[in-house]
Amino acid sequence: MEKPTLPKGTRDFGPAQMAKRQFILDTIKKVFQKYCFQPLETPAMEDLSTLTGKYGNEGDQLLFKILNSGDFLKHADPKQLEARDSPQVALAISEKGLRYDLTVPFARYVVMNRHEITFPFKRYQIQPVWRADRPQKGRYREFYQCDADVVGTTSLVCEAEIVLMIKEVFSALGIRDYSIKINHRAILSGLAAIAGVKKNEAALFVAIDKLDKIGEKKVREELLSKGFESQGVSRLFEILNLAGNTKQKMDFLINEFPKVANIDNGITDLREIMRMLRDFGVDENHLEFDMALARGLSYYTGTIFEVKINNVSVGSVSGGGRYDNLTGVFGMPGVSGTGFSFGVDRLCDAMEELQLFPKETQFFSTILVAHLDEERLHYGLKVVQTLRQQNIAAEIYPDPSKLKKQLEYANKRMIPYVIVIGSEEVMSNLLVFRNMKTGEQQKLSLEQIMKFDFSA
Amino acid sequence: MEKPTLPKGTRDFGPAQMAKRQFILDTIKKVFQKYCFQPLETPAMEDLSTLTGKYGNEGDQLLFKILNSGDFLKHADPKQLEARDSPQVALAISEKGLRYDLTVPFARYVVMNRHEITFPFKRYQIQPVWRADRPQKGRYREFYQCDADVVGTTSLVCEAEIVLMIKEVFSALGIRDYSIKINHRAILSGLAAIAGVKKNEAALFVAIDKLDKIGEKKVREELLSKGFESQGVSRLFEILNLAGNTKQKMDFLINEFPKVANIDNGITDLREIMRMLRDFGVDENHLEFDMALARGLSYYTGTIFEVKINNVSVGSVSGGGRYDNLTGVFGMPGVSGTGFSFGVDRLCDAMEELQLFPKETQFFSTILVAHLDEERLHYGLKVVQTLRQQNIAAEIYPDPSKLKKQLEYANKRMIPYVIVIGSEEVMSNLLVFRNMKTGEQQKLSLEQIMKFDFSA
Repeated sequence: MEKPTLPKGTRDFGPAQMAKRQFILDTIKKVFQKYCFQPLETPAMEDLSTLTGKYGNEGDQLLFKILNSGDFLKHADPKQLEARDSPQVALAISEKGLRYDLTVPFARYVVMNRHEITFPFKRYQIQPVWRADRPQKGRYREFYQCDADVVGTTSLVCEAEIVLMIKEVFSALGIRDYSIKINHRAILSGLAAIAGVKKNEAALFVAIDKLDKIGEKKVREELLSKGFESQGVSRLFEILNLAGNTKQKMDFLINEFPKVANIDNGITDLREIMRMLRDFGVDENHLEFDMALARGLSYYTGTIFEVKINNVSVGSVSGGGRYDNLTGVFGMPGVSGTGFSFGVDRLCDAMEELQLFPKETQFFSTILVAHLDEERLHYGLKVVQTLRQQNIAAEIYPDPSKLKKQLEYANKRMIPYVIVIGSEEVMSNLLVFRNMKTGEQQKLSLEQIMKFDFSA
Repeated sequence: MEKPTLPKGTRDFGPAQMAKRQFILDTIKKVFQKYCFQPLETPAMEDLSTLTGKYGNEGDQLLFKILNSGDFLKHADPKQLEARDSPQVALAISEKGLRYDLTVPFARYVVMNRHEITFPFKRYQIQPVWRADRPQKGRYREFYQCDADVVGTTSLVCEAEIVLMIKEVFSALGIRDYSIKINHRAILSGLAAIAGVKKNEAALFVAIDKLDKIGEKKVREELLSKGFESQGVSRLFEILNLAGNTKQKMDFLINEFPKVANIDNGITDLREIMRMLRDFGVDENHLEFDMALARGLSYYTGTIFEVKINNVSVGSVSGGGRYDNLTGVFGMPGVSGTGFSFGVDRLCDAMEELQLFPKETQFFSTILVAHLDEERLHYGLKVVQTLRQQNIAAEIYPDPSKLKKQLEYANKRMIPYVIVIGSEEVMSNLLVFRNMKTGEQQKLSLEQIMKFDFSA
């Protein structure tokens, strides 16, 4: 018999990992809910026609396709089969795919339910997505996304609230040293204009977005190799290298280039967002204007966000922005929206690196009821159930085993307290109550144990 | 542009449905955790070799297969392609499938992690599964399963705790009228022996399992048509039709047939489970010995459970049992386990039918901050944020719209309270606080509003 394996790039999450992931997800969910985002779940499978053409050519290659059920070859074209034309045959034998992100399914949902939805519509969605990427450290073929979006309003309140939610999540997770980078599509367009770039803006943005990863020299090389003019590139870097704080950079841009593209709109939006933050009563700490921030996704039309935790090895853990035409591709134009997403896997890695997980995320059982023999096991049933009635997570060792084995079980499972039921205990109604960390034990009645502060 | 659609047999869960599902899932999760089951998640995709052969021929047909990435046709056999041999070609072009249930992935996990796991291992798992079934009312191609299993012990404490957990979940959900049917594989084998059946026991069990759905007459017909002897079938129904309560039926079986197959072991187990329930301090209400209960799955080797809510149109909402060799198929024999599963979709339908969802599951926002113009919107930012700091789910209408529109939004979203900020309010620091249900409104300071009991 072959040993079972896991598909490449996928993972099991055992209890210890689940505890950490649940801690992060619960924290995020609580914040989303406090800001009145409503939950949505969409199916893992979507029609391929819903998915293809939304993520660029590269994205289309990374879609997992589901083989049609039954006699799928019946409708395949004999010539294509003979020619081994895998891409064309795929279209004939597969009509569904696994979702690639949560944004496109959300857009589809909005279009399909436009008449029932009350706009502005604030939704959050926490589900796995699948990409047939080459697996490598920190990159998986199945991973969770954790999105919140508002559609149906152009109000910058939404952008400001994204900043608030990021701050609140990080504060609850105990992450202190991080930057929320912010930029605007109009400012990027302005930079392109200043650099004299008229076509292929996207290639420019992709290149400068890598600035903090690969450095100025390599970005310059990439830009020149792609045919951008050397003079324009130099002008661009003069601006990107500007010293000063957010306010100074913005003042510079709007004074020097008030009418280049619509750079002024970008600055106006960002200033309004910062004004709103002050009105919310929240400081601007962590917020950082970064003109080079572009993010790969071409659908952003307004503000762009990205969050980096400083001094850890993981990349950005959150990002998002405003898009003005997400639902247009499904025949519903003119719905502006803003959204952002947390990367749960990276957040988890960063928290691990910073040792920020609280100790309690390590065990699931507060107390184990152990016993010396079958008769005491039966006596223990009442004990364990009484504890549960007080909402204490309690379990009883199910077999009449040696006490040593039962205590080992408690140790391995990191159960902090054990009650031992021996013969004397049954007579006296006093139970041996043992703190597994300190090894201390005392005889207490069940009533006394129930008054114990287990959270300490 | 084509309108987007959903794949057959799949569903979106919008906010209203999500609220109900989360209520059910949170309730179940809390109970699982109180009984010290630990969370596990496995990937949506498994190797097809892990999945095939585990669910019978019919099950294998219902697996969703993932098309291999890249040039998948390269390794296909030309003859099979030419012959349009879909099943054989499928094996060549697809090596992964979507999980069909949570039990097989759990068994795989246990085998792969046997050296790290502390046994007995109690895990719960709440994830969707996929089956290429013909969609029909109440049957979907993607649906959630909600499993709890203990492996590595033969203790009947596990069976008794399943009964406790079912009772606790139903009590928390407000479901009062239901039956937990219980039976034992050894009793089924005994019945087969009594009926003179030596081969094809499985067909017998499948037939009598339908007794409460299609009635005695049809089950008799099915048995006779399958070649079972008429005399044996009659003898079988004499026993199945026995009057009396659980105790009387058990007494009868053990007195009349003490040595038929190992009927006595079955009775001993069930009696011990009931003794344990008494020791746990829990009554036997809802528990019902049902000799005809077999459940389709052939891997049960001991106790079998099934739960039906009475007077609703949905079928069984929970079921499970003991299996002695779940991991054997992956090369790890001799690991006994017990498990059960809640059907979330059916539970949801039943709760809906019985109108058991609490009112609070209908909205997500406790309070909307409305405003008369842009200036008041800015003033409102501080108000909404102050409420959130008190953990109140609060939102501000993001656009400077007409008050009527904002109140309509609150109504459609079923937001119970609205604060209206007008010019006077900004001067006086008094806010208009409106109860949307009663239409009552009063002027209160923010401090007074924060002391309000929103749970009322």
